[in-house]
Amino acid sequence: MANEGFTVACNAFHTPQRGRLEILENCLIRVGDDGRILDVVRSDRADHATILRSADNDGTLIALAENQYLLPGMVDLHIHAPQWAQLGKALDAPLEEWLQKYTFPLEAKYADTAFARQIYGSLVENLLANGTTTAVYFGTIHVEANLALAEICLKRGQRALVGKVAMDDPAQCPDFYRDGGASAAVEDTKRFMRLLAEMQSEGRTLVHPAITPRFVPSCTDALLEGLGRVAHETGCHVQTHCCESDWATEHVQNRFGQTDTGVLARFGLLTDKTILAHSNFVSPEDVDRIKAAGSGVAHCPLSNFYFADAVFPLRAALDKGVHVGLGTDISGGYSPSLFDSARLAMIAARALNSGVDPAAAREARGVPGSRITTAEAFWLATSGGGETLGLPVGVFAPGFEFDALVVDVDAPASNISLWPFESAVDVFDKIVLNAGRANIAAVWVGGKIRSGTTA
Amino acid sequence: MANEGFTVACNAFHTPQRGRLEILENCLIRVGDDGRILDVVRSDRADHATILRSADNDGTLIALAENQYLLPGMVDLHIHAPQWAQLGKALDAPLEEWLQKYTFPLEAKYADTAFARQIYGSLVENLLANGTTTAVYFGTIHVEANLALAEICLKRGQRALVGKVAMDDPAQCPDFYRDGGASAAVEDTKRFMRLLAEMQSEGRTLVHPAITPRFVPSCTDALLEGLGRVAHETGCHVQTHCCESDWATEHVQNRFGQTDTGVLARFGLLTDKTILAHSNFVSPEDVDRIKAAGSGVAHCPLSNFYFADAVFPLRAALDKGVHVGLGTDISGGYSPSLFDSARLAMIAARALNSGVDPAAAREARGVPGSRITTAEAFWLATSGGGETLGLPVGVFAPGFEFDALVVDVDAPASNISLWPFESAVDVFDKIVLNAGRANIAAVWVGGKIRSGTTA
Repeated sequence: MANEGFTVACNAFHTPQRGRLEILENCLIRVGDDGRILDVVRSDRADHATILRSADNDGTLIALAENQYLLPGMVDLHIHAPQWAQLGKALDAPLEEWLQKYTFPLEAKYADTAFARQIYGSLVENLLANGTTTAVYFGTIHVEANLALAEICLKRGQRALVGKVAMDDPAQCPDFYRDGGASAAVEDTKRFMRLLAEMQSEGRTLVHPAITPRFVPSCTDALLEGLGRVAHETGCHVQTHCCESDWATEHVQNRFGQTDTGVLARFGLLTDKTILAHSNFVSPEDVDRIKAAGSGVAHCPLSNFYFADAVFPLRAALDKGVHVGLGTDISGGYSPSLFDSARLAMIAARALNSGVDPAAAREARGVPGSRITTAEAFWLATSGGGETLGLPVGVFAPGFEFDALVVDVDAPASNISLWPFESAVDVFDKIVLNAGRANIAAVWVGGKIRSGTTA
Repeated sequence: MANEGFTVACNAFHTPQRGRLEILENCLIRVGDDGRILDVVRSDRADHATILRSADNDGTLIALAENQYLLPGMVDLHIHAPQWAQLGKALDAPLEEWLQKYTFPLEAKYADTAFARQIYGSLVENLLANGTTTAVYFGTIHVEANLALAEICLKRGQRALVGKVAMDDPAQCPDFYRDGGASAAVEDTKRFMRLLAEMQSEGRTLVHPAITPRFVPSCTDALLEGLGRVAHETGCHVQTHCCESDWATEHVQNRFGQTDTGVLARFGLLTDKTILAHSNFVSPEDVDRIKAAGSGVAHCPLSNFYFADAVFPLRAALDKGVHVGLGTDISGGYSPSLFDSARLAMIAARALNSGVDPAAAREARGVPGSRITTAEAFWLATSGGGETLGLPVGVFAPGFEFDALVVDVDAPASNISLWPFESAVDVFDKIVLNAGRANIAAVWVGGKIRSGTTA
């Protein structure tokens, strides 16, 4: 099945536009031998029966069972790959302390490429099993370990962006984990990009590079300037943290007299291929600047409850037309599942909408108009992420990559219970709210099975 | 193994006091033929080897594998059993509208006992599989359907409280779903309690009754008075909703000139066996009154994000010594897992602590001192719940029921990754933050396997 086209007969859900759920009952999705979708054939189309019969005769039909639903693969816009080793622990300190106490010492270990291979192999396997078909990774400062991560993504077939983390400011970065100066960091970034390009000889690029200044506080002006030049020369993606916490926001304001978005713009790092993680403390002017630049936001609701001390004003950003998707922020977020991220995006939006302190009067408690719907949350996890990256993923439509997952509502350990009186919208809601890794029976990336099985 | 004593050799975690994690490495838990714990033998005790050998020789040893950990069974203090059929959907309306639009029509269907049996069979099976060994259920107004629920709990062996919901006020309850007056509701409550007692002929009580005025707004004074008399006469548990939303709190204030806790106390419904669901909008005086009465709170963090529009001031209540445990509040909460409830209790506490609106100054944003630890969250889901109910569950100690679950960190679909450099505390944290139904390999209630297997 791997190297020829095939047709999937199934019930599918996707959200081609923000908040618009499309139910594809008994549809056929024709996938070309290049792994992209050729056609989405609805049940009422005249040639439905012919196409179904023909695929069946050819032996290229994959028919999902009644209890299985096809969803677009999910896009995780913000993952710290090295932090996989501390997923679900070490969450007791504020951001600036957490970095120094737990995270920098752990990331420094990736100087050992064998260690990196072990952790990264587990990471990529686990994320694919959770339905993450596109992953945007911060690596470490180490070129070899980052290449190992890219190689594992290529081998296991996960679509990814990988960034060599750049951080050179001795005032913020410890001696044991810091680039050897701005030029060295820029040169290592270029070397990583060159070697990554060499890894991928044939066909379309599966693993893209991303220029990755950790966050403004960890980079000198010279480094930001150098990375801005590389962004301009190469036109490749940029990723960094933006306005995540009170501390970081104040730090940047004190240093530059402006916010992260202004600083990034000044250094040529706010482009239409930039992914800004978090962005909780953006002002309306920041949002306008992000929108004007065509940059996007990786909203990380779980991590924000632990480290940001405020909720990203998601709905306001969406209403202005800013690109937004979701990030697990492993390991600032403890869950590797974008289903969890989608749920927590709804929860965070509700908390912002209604406020949290019962001692405050209702009118004074929250920011009304902040809620999002279940369909919007799912859109963020799929198509919103794809749009943010400028990649054709997250929607079932001709020309899009066939990145998809099968949810089996009757899987062992399933927490989804369906009843005969359920509507298709009910089924979708129940999947988004209660599906977990145990429900994911199969995962395709670019038309190839990368986790599970359709048997 | 069901009718004789046995010994479990394992690594176990429990939280015998709030926030105090106890790690029982390589311990032996001896369980009597009555299903209660006889002894917890630590690895350094002189008779450890003898007891181990003896159990092995007798064929009464259950040795867990290296990758398995024993935890106390979890206690869910607030479940609307009939709402299992709408778990994970119908979450788009505020509380008072949600009741009329979705929930009362669904609950009315339980006049059909065959329908009730179908839903309740699924509910109890699914909750046991999620590790809920003690479940506190609101039923419906229907005596027969509630008896069916109790019978299913008895048959499947889940420890439970079951309440016939009482609601008679025509101003708040629809014609199609309302008790036939205060006397009828009181009589039905008594009849349910009598028939439930008759069901359980032998041994200790597994399924307890609970007097269940839905919430103050749905009950006339006469009903509250009648139920208060039953509480006084029988000394049995009471459960109701307390100060859940702005609407309900205002409604009660307008009607009685006092809060829920005052009204419940006045009618004899605030006892040392009362479980108050939610309690988000309790004042400091309310908390004092709850504490003085010896009542407890069922904190339902997920549901509160959807329906309460504020976070229960958990930490403040705990610091005053109020009994508190967790509730899923199915289906106001969409997850049946108390692991999710524990995580969301931490998230809610963090949101309250730090606030949510990034436009507010940090000092003005939240209620500092509101956070809870991972060990506190787990305590709430186990021992805190047991204390609230006054039942000997949630701790591994002599005299306690052997209600327990096995977490297999390497189960298929596990999202727990452990590494050689992990400490026992790390393992505990990773379990609390990422374990799910897929990790639960076996569940005991009162010394009997009720879900999964130890094979």
